[in-house]
Amino acid sequence: MTSREAPISTLDEDALVSLLRERFPAPPEEVGIGDDAATFSARGPQVVFTTDTMVEGVDFDLTYFSGADLGWKVMAINASDVAAMGAEPWKALLTLCMPPSTSVGFVQEVIDGVAQAAADMGVGVAGGDISASDQVVLGAAVVGLVDVPITRAGARVGDAICVTGTLGGSSGGLSLLQEDPSAEGPLVTRHRRPRPRLREARALKELHPSAMLDVSDGLVIDLHRLLVASDKGCRVDPALVPVDPHLPNVEDKRAALFGGEDFELLVTLRREDVDAAAAALGPTGTAITEIGVVTDGDRLIGDLSLTDLKEHGWDHLQSR
Amino acid sequence: MTSREAPISTLDEDALVSLLRERFPAPPEEVGIGDDAATFSARGPQVVFTTDTMVEGVDFDLTYFSGADLGWKVMAINASDVAAMGAEPWKALLTLCMPPSTSVGFVQEVIDGVAQAAADMGVGVAGGDISASDQVVLGAAVVGLVDVPITRAGARVGDAICVTGTLGGSSGGLSLLQEDPSAEGPLVTRHRRPRPRLREARALKELHPSAMLDVSDGLVIDLHRLLVASDKGCRVDPALVPVDPHLPNVEDKRAALFGGEDFELLVTLRREDVDAAAAALGPTGTAITEIGVVTDGDRLIGDLSLTDLKEHGWDHLQSR
Repeated sequence: MTSREAPISTLDEDALVSLLRERFPAPPEEVGIGDDAATFSARGPQVVFTTDTMVEGVDFDLTYFSGADLGWKVMAINASDVAAMGAEPWKALLTLCMPPSTSVGFVQEVIDGVAQAAADMGVGVAGGDISASDQVVLGAAVVGLVDVPITRAGARVGDAICVTGTLGGSSGGLSLLQEDPSAEGPLVTRHRRPRPRLREARALKELHPSAMLDVSDGLVIDLHRLLVASDKGCRVDPALVPVDPHLPNVEDKRAALFGGEDFELLVTLRREDVDAAAAALGPTGTAITEIGVVTDGDRLIGDLSLTDLKEHGWDHLQSR
Repeated sequence: MTSREAPISTLDEDALVSLLRERFPAPPEEVGIGDDAATFSARGPQVVFTTDTMVEGVDFDLTYFSGADLGWKVMAINASDVAAMGAEPWKALLTLCMPPSTSVGFVQEVIDGVAQAAADMGVGVAGGDISASDQVVLGAAVVGLVDVPITRAGARVGDAICVTGTLGGSSGGLSLLQEDPSAEGPLVTRHRRPRPRLREARALKELHPSAMLDVSDGLVIDLHRLLVASDKGCRVDPALVPVDPHLPNVEDKRAALFGGEDFELLVTLRREDVDAAAAALGPTGTAITEIGVVTDGDRLIGDLSLTDLKEHGWDHLQSR
């Protein structure tokens, strides 16, 4: 037995692979962890393929992220991207880069978090890669399957612009953690253990949204991306943007517009389908809010240019 | 225009994505770089999925690796894993983690190397992820398609153990570079610009090998893995192990047994198929060498135990 406090440099790579293989067994008809590559049957007409990586000191700090938080989050952010294509996340590969002094216990925590997320999200862990590094770098690549992908490029003039749930909570949680790494509560949980909107994406897909993405870098940036990809304009009412109810004050509209990592779905739909979308989301308990309309004109949030907002931020424009 | 000498922190993420999208355009029926995920049609019965990452200071040193070398190599090592399953590598996602002070020119060099490899290997670059980090971390995830994957678990008693090409050249090149970062020549090229055995894997597949893997961590380690996965023993004659002809001296049997990153194929075949395998590889110009036989007994290289060799190394056992 290797002590959880032992550094991972005392475990050889094959021992780590064995540990992962026990934890994530492959069905008999598939090749799982430990061969050159994983294999699985291509059951769907379109493969969806994404990767996203978290870097210590850039995307998280180990003073306020446990190994299990990291394992959960790396799965969540990738599953969210696949769901935002209207696809079902299916198989994941992990990349774990860690200093050789990292404890075996930390690695096991990461694996625990990955396993929790994998079970919750219905994703299989098919393999991965382990390497030494100076800082912790944790990545995943996820494939999914879909009949017809929902890209960010299909928004049509007159479509309602809608967002699921509420925004700003994750960046609010990050602020709390940066002040006090032992902070707890719903905002902190939202930052450390985001829940990708898998069921919501599945429900929305039935209404054939014209465009969809997950809000990972903030509403202003991601809305701008959707409109650029679709070559369209917008009128969005900032007063309608749903703010996480746990944020403490009215200033938090800024967090809702600019805060990243809420992983809500930003979606464009026929306006006559908005009520049906709300009804379809009923069983998930997640609201959907119409915040504006797709136009063929400028990109406006209130009377501000979305492009200016993206370039210069809220404070600059409020102080004009 | 952004100067190639400018740090990448002066480019925003969307600008980098645009640069990648221009360089790696997606066919019209697919979603390429710049959406939540890439998509492509699932044309084959089995999806093969792998990831492998290179870390600065662990897997390479920037004193002797150019950006283009890195871009090439990260594609090569992943394509090699897919080919070693008997599959065709098809689509890649890149992960680029770099210090914010990295020059734009370096990033463009990496992309050049990726593009050269992608064209050479017939792989599409479908997307990826860019992040800041303290050291350069370059990863790829590659999917491929295959009818029936060739795992490392199928070796049968009596099968010939064969290896393509020659071994030890890459570690020989690494030694030269560690002595003199400006070293050049075939060994150095083999280390910096490995050629995955894609055509060779395609030819060998027709002979239905019972097991196959690519020699990435050294013959001793990788042969051990194949035999453990297959639950078999072996008798291998170390005199038969093909040594890279550019290695300077007889001592280099050690490099051939232990050196990694040659990316040759280690394969088990019916003995009566070895001549056919050599003939099938004829058009590729790559030799195949029978180095031993699969047994139901101990794992032996000459009179040494493969397990002891793996644990203790060549020198230890030679000096007994």
